[in-house]
Amino acid sequence: VHIRRIQPTDRAPLESLLNRTAEFTKDESSCALELIDFAITPYHPDYQALVAQTDAGMIAGYICYGPTPMTQGCFDLYWIAADASLRGQGTGRKLVAAMEAELRERQGRLVRVETSSQEGYGATRKFYLAIGYAEEARLKGFYKPDDDLVIFTRQL
Amino acid sequence: VHIRRIQPTDRAPLESLLNRTAEFTKDESSCALELIDFAITPYHPDYQALVAQTDAGMIAGYICYGPTPMTQGCFDLYWIAADASLRGQGTGRKLVAAMEAELRERQGRLVRVETSSQEGYGATRKFYLAIGYAEEARLKGFYKPDDDLVIFTRQL
Repeated sequence: VHIRRIQPTDRAPLESLLNRTAEFTKDESSCALELIDFAITPYHPDYQALVAQTDAGMIAGYICYGPTPMTQGCFDLYWIAADASLRGQGTGRKLVAAMEAELRERQGRLVRVETSSQEGYGATRKFYLAIGYAEEARLKGFYKPDDDLVIFTRQL
Repeated sequence: VHIRRIQPTDRAPLESLLNRTAEFTKDESSCALELIDFAITPYHPDYQALVAQTDAGMIAGYICYGPTPMTQGCFDLYWIAADASLRGQGTGRKLVAAMEAELRERQGRLVRVETSSQEGYGATRKFYLAIGYAEEARLKGFYKPDDDLVIFTRQL
């Protein structure tokens, strides 16, 4: 796959990708799509996105991120998704690496990712640990009574 | 003081209050004002606000909060400010208590507040501890290299 900036024609394949992604609830998919709409807007200050495209032209995944308000050089990684049929091929890693390279150029110092403590997100948490992110904090009962917020960060 | 819901005529006195509040930078004041504009919008789903008004009709403070996206029953306390000339009279406490009473009615379970580790926010951190909030997490170097994010929470 190669990584490139998002463009308006990516919206439909990304919507389909979100709906096919088992980890995401309907609420999460529609929240993610809302941010995709912001990221498609040229020069949107708050949300940016990159997509991974296969040589055959298929959208294999995307990553959405943006500067954390009120901070100097902190960025939030808001959403990342990779097509399940193409997993294990490093699409997620490549998306994160491309985002990090861009953020270093933008004087980024720190990336924050928020995820869930639930079992369904176990692969996601392992992924972040594997690519150099550290679990820095947990908030008990954040999403639901038995579903904690897990915050990963990485120094750029 | 008595606590009531925000109304459009509160915007000007609140803008003046934000500008007079020594703890807030210009950036923070304009971010806070942006959320006040959302909260003034009737039935805005994401941001709500209450103001504290003195018997003489002066706006002594305000609190802005809203449901945390993607969570069931978690709320963020986004901004709180009390007029410096009226501090020590329990305005901040009353604003938080009124917010919490409303959130309990809305099936709120948890309140999250994010603040800074900097010395200028020492009184703010003490305030949260004094009214029953617990420091649950820190993210090092979040705002700036030497300025950590401090997250307080309270179970409702």
